[in-house]
Amino acid sequence: MTGDRAFSGEDIYALSARLFPLHRSIMGNGVRETHNVLRSVVPELVTKEIPSGTRCFDWVIPDEWNLTDAYIADMSGRRVIDIQNSNLHVMSYSPAMDAVLSRDVLMEHIVSLPEMPDAIPFMTSYFDDRWAFCVTERQRESLNEDRYRVVIKATLEPGSMTYGEILIPGRETKEILVHTYTCHPSMGNNETSGMAVAAYLARSIIDMSDRRYSYRIVFAPETIGAVAYISKNLDDLRTSTIAGFVMTCVGDDRAWSFMPARHADTLPERAARHVLTKILKVPFQTFSYLERGSDERQYCAPGVGLPVVSIMRSKYGTYPEYHTSLDDMTVLSPAGLWGGYQATRLAIDVIECNETLVSTVICEPWLSPRGLRAPLRDGKFLDDFSRKVSDLMAFSDGTMDLLAIADRVDASLFDLLPVVEILKDQGLLEPVEEPKSASRQAP
Amino acid sequence: MTGDRAFSGEDIYALSARLFPLHRSIMGNGVRETHNVLRSVVPELVTKEIPSGTRCFDWVIPDEWNLTDAYIADMSGRRVIDIQNSNLHVMSYSPAMDAVLSRDVLMEHIVSLPEMPDAIPFMTSYFDDRWAFCVTERQRESLNEDRYRVVIKATLEPGSMTYGEILIPGRETKEILVHTYTCHPSMGNNETSGMAVAAYLARSIIDMSDRRYSYRIVFAPETIGAVAYISKNLDDLRTSTIAGFVMTCVGDDRAWSFMPARHADTLPERAARHVLTKILKVPFQTFSYLERGSDERQYCAPGVGLPVVSIMRSKYGTYPEYHTSLDDMTVLSPAGLWGGYQATRLAIDVIECNETLVSTVICEPWLSPRGLRAPLRDGKFLDDFSRKVSDLMAFSDGTMDLLAIADRVDASLFDLLPVVEILKDQGLLEPVEEPKSASRQAP
Amino acid sequence: MTGDRAFSGEDIYALSARLFPLHRSIMGNGVRETHNVLRSVVPELVTKEIPSGTRCFDWVIPDEWNLTDAYIADMSGRRVIDIQNSNLHVMSYSPAMDAVLSRDVLMEHIVSLPEMPDAIPFMTSYFDDRWAFCVTERQRESLNEDRYRVVIKATLEPGSMTYGEILIPGRETKEILVHTYTCHPSMGNNETSGMAVAAYLARSIIDMSDRRYSYRIVFAPETIGAVAYISKNLDDLRTSTIAGFVMTCVGDDRAWSFMPARHADTLPERAARHVLTKILKVPFQTFSYLERGSDERQYCAPGVGLPVVSIMRSKYGTYPEYHTSLDDMTVLSPAGLWGGYQATRLAIDVIECNETLVSTVICEPWLSPRGLRAPLRDGKFLDDFSRKVSDLMAFSDGTMDLLAIADRVDASLFDLLPVVEILKDQGLLEPVEEPKSASRQAP
Repeated sequence: MTGDRAFSGEDIYALSARLFPLHRSIMGNGVRETHNVLRSVVPELVTKEIPSGTRCFDWVIPDEWNLTDAYIADMSGRRVIDIQNSNLHVMSYSPAMDAVLSRDVLMEHIVSLPEMPDAIPFMTSYFDDRWAFCVTERQRESLNEDRYRVVIKATLEPGSMTYGEILIPGRETKEILVHTYTCHPSMGNNETSGMAVAAYLARSIIDMSDRRYSYRIVFAPETIGAVAYISKNLDDLRTSTIAGFVMTCVGDDRAWSFMPARHADTLPERAARHVLTKILKVPFQTFSYLERGSDERQYCAPGVGLPVVSIMRSKYGTYPEYHTSLDDMTVLSPAGLWGGYQATRLAIDVIECNETLVSTVICEPWLSPRGLRAPLRDGKFLDDFSRKVSDLMAFSDGTMDLLAIADRVDASLFDLLPVVEILKDQGLLEPVEEPKSASRQAP
Repeated sequence: MTGDRAFSGEDIYALSARLFPLHRSIMGNGVRETHNVLRSVVPELVTKEIPSGTRCFDWVIPDEWNLTDAYIADMSGRRVIDIQNSNLHVMSYSPAMDAVLSRDVLMEHIVSLPEMPDAIPFMTSYFDDRWAFCVTERQRESLNEDRYRVVIKATLEPGSMTYGEILIPGRETKEILVHTYTCHPSMGNNETSGMAVAAYLARSIIDMSDRRYSYRIVFAPETIGAVAYISKNLDDLRTSTIAGFVMTCVGDDRAWSFMPARHADTLPERAARHVLTKILKVPFQTFSYLERGSDERQYCAPGVGLPVVSIMRSKYGTYPEYHTSLDDMTVLSPAGLWGGYQATRLAIDVIECNETLVSTVICEPWLSPRGLRAPLRDGKFLDDFSRKVSDLMAFSDGTMDLLAIADRVDASLFDLLPVVEILKDQGLLEPVEEPKSASRQAP
Repeated sequence: MTGDRAFSGEDIYALSARLFPLHRSIMGNGVRETHNVLRSVVPELVTKEIPSGTRCFDWVIPDEWNLTDAYIADMSGRRVIDIQNSNLHVMSYSPAMDAVLSRDVLMEHIVSLPEMPDAIPFMTSYFDDRWAFCVTERQRESLNEDRYRVVIKATLEPGSMTYGEILIPGRETKEILVHTYTCHPSMGNNETSGMAVAAYLARSIIDMSDRRYSYRIVFAPETIGAVAYISKNLDDLRTSTIAGFVMTCVGDDRAWSFMPARHADTLPERAARHVLTKILKVPFQTFSYLERGSDERQYCAPGVGLPVVSIMRSKYGTYPEYHTSLDDMTVLSPAGLWGGYQATRLAIDVIECNETLVSTVICEPWLSPRGLRAPLRDGKFLDDFSRKVSDLMAFSDGTMDLLAIADRVDASLFDLLPVVEILKDQGLLEPVEEPKSASRQAP
């Protein structure tokens, strides 16, 4: 299913590149433009708005902040720091201002990274009446005049929070969730990679000729957007979700990383581990839920308790460019994005194919009259096909799903599937009603 | 119980040697002669026949194949390959023929092992209309004339499959199963060792003065015989079997091997491990159920699900002579066979002795007035007897059986038993109704 | 709570020193004097007596033995072994005698330790009509005259066994048990350390301004005293005890040791491990229940099954002076005793503070309007306070208690508590009715 390549890593990279320059925050027009760009790949994306002031569980949707210009100019009027050069220069939700400040006062509102002199740090302060400019250390050092004019042209007014979803029906009402966030300004691995890969995941799922499960693809600002989305869909999510994937940091080519759900051994964890170890066969680092940091924090929270994991490339917080202007399009690569896409896509395929079967015969079946036995045996070792037949019949007792059997026999689930099909055609295996592995733990 | 040595390893070896030359296949007169030889040790063996055409679960009993002569002769009439020299020369169920064939055609039906030039491979093809001669690589190389006469004098006609059982009643109806197969022609470790040891196990069990459990000793061709036997006895087996042992590869003196049941930690697995580690104290290799290969495949299959294991010497598939003419009587030794006998016999003894006890007192018992305390204590360390008393009383809470306690305290169960008897006599321990360890898992 | 230091290690040492010279056995006036000394610290100690002949489960309280004098004199009347020099010279419960014995006969009743020539061994024989003198190897070697006069002035008459308890009510009826023994004559680590630390534990618990749990502090002779105490209080103990600590070997400064209960992972085990690893952060040796040796033998026995552990310094049986006259006040130190006190006191504090909480919100709470968020975030890493808030909210799902969460996030429970208080004050966390961790396993 992943082999069709109706699109490529280059396509995902190109979408990332289009999303990169937009000035996103948790709310505002940058997010709406982002949705418009996403719709070029998935016109099925339904964009929704939640008004400022709406209560979502413990949270309230804040006012909408839109920035039109911002700069620091010397007294001659020359812009020494200019938002046109980087969306990261102004801390999100900084209030409008136009003031001449002494260097000392200005410096209290300047943030830089002395240990990374060419990087502009990414700062947020959504819920406080604070302002700051984020600059490189070299820029900070060059601010050595006595006074500067500081201009922020921004509005903070009641508006709405923008999010989007794509609901894709399948044969079953049980759902697989894909979630990504849309709130960071110009950053690559930790922003546009997730959106771009999620969009192409949605594209590929919509284009599947047959879907067993239903799908829910969500684009929302991190944290408050996930909270709001869950608050509007809690019953559906808790009733239907058998597995979820938060798409974040899926764009570079330096590492593979896995973040489990709060509960151990969930279905998406089992699928993800199977993909990484038995199908992609790549080395990867498993993080602890103690190192969580994206929207699994909401989906796995007490009261929600969904099985939601992340398969990542270089995880947030672990690579040097993280949350700085250096996390730009050079950090991403078509191969990195394709890997990020492929891993979750394969995990979804694994879950689509997974089922719990039970042998219809007692003891082993008689293979010879069914043509399922290599005609001449050397009597020592079973050939690979016969071994798969034997293992599938030996372990299909109605309690182990195919994923568990594949792990048990150290095989790729996809390598077992053709044999499964033959055994089902022969009437030797049949599905049991409710696959146990799909059951969820208490929230 | 194993110390009586009413027989010895030499006796088991002698029985193996008598069974070795018989020309067995899955059905036919060779099997019947085998039963007659077995009856010299266990006249209690009841031989039964299942007619060709009988359906057994997914299988149908095939026609009976009997071979009276087979050879390859050169055109001068000299037999260059002759069944008289090795029962392995003709693949089982090769159809009758008498034809002069070109060397090229003949070679398509010649099987040899280039990497073992002096070994005749063992080949079977019970359910296909194929023929083959199995020869040494040196013999194959010497077949360099243009034409040969190939003669197979065999009948393939409706008949019956021969198997046998010995049912030995005990005080309880719960049963211990011993199963071995009877279908390989002249091979040692992977055929006659199992039958010879199983026969002497039956002999020793019948001769026990007191038996707690009932026993079921089965001699049947591998795979189809086990399937047929289970099909005729499924309810009894599932109701009664608390432990089973497949006797195979129990005759050489090079290794100890253990094959668990499909389910983990079954009673026979616990007993076998205890025997190997705490009683015989021999190094052994534990194989995975993925490496199964004998009739545990049927007894542990979905729909049957019995706790059946194998304690072996050199496991099938792991030693160089396996499934060739080199697996002959020189591979076996009286010591190897005695070890193979002893291990399963001890595991049976462990299960016979095992029970779940519960302390009749609250807190520790008062040992001094019972004479259970060494009179003068140095106050530092308990003597060995007092330590056993203390441990048995400390852990007998009605949930741990004696086998579990023996493993917990790193002692042989047999070393605990005299102390158990004293504590029972003193009224300090008493059995609980249903030992939990005897419970079986779902099939 | 342990920081108030209303007393010090020196105070505990001083109490040990006062208890040291008293001539204790399992019964008799030495025990009563011991209780009088203990009352100087805990006047709340209620001393009770159980008459000789009373049946306690499997045991019967024996007669009371009181020794007034004992010596071995040479024929000139010079005392060569004299009880005045060491309470260990006479084996407990040696009957009264006054006889002149040949050296050979005497030697059958002389016990010494050749490998420790300056140590008097400690011997007991409570329930046999035997006598012995325990002497140093050097003393034994000096007994080279032909005849000696042996005098033991002792009474063995119906009396009573002395024990004591302090019941300290708390807000809840569930109890924490502290038990120590009172039956060894002049020894330090393996006797007076336990009593002295238990007395000061009682003192500190009584002086707590607020107690959640009720407490039961028991002073009784080892083994028979514990059996008798349990026999009189079994229902209460089984109904109320959530954790227990046997105080023994808590006085030297050479090691830390831990003895678990018979069942794994009990509440006191979890608390003790947390104290040793996360609070005191000391290396310690975990012993197996196979190496048990004090009154956990009774409290954990079948039919009782309480969660009772020991946090020790150098465990009984592991240090060279154990059960000899060399286990004297020089083995103890104020620092060692304070450590012994502190470890169990902290474990009690951990249990007092432990509870199972559940988040009152769905998803993460909104921290900013509650002032629970550092105002300016560098966007990369949570500060320590925010991390604790996040973890407490993420894991408080009503199934993990605070102790489990502290272990999960590798923090001291005490470091989490201030944050817990804030979250409770904010209404974000609330307790669930019955903490699961406090549940006991079957006896």
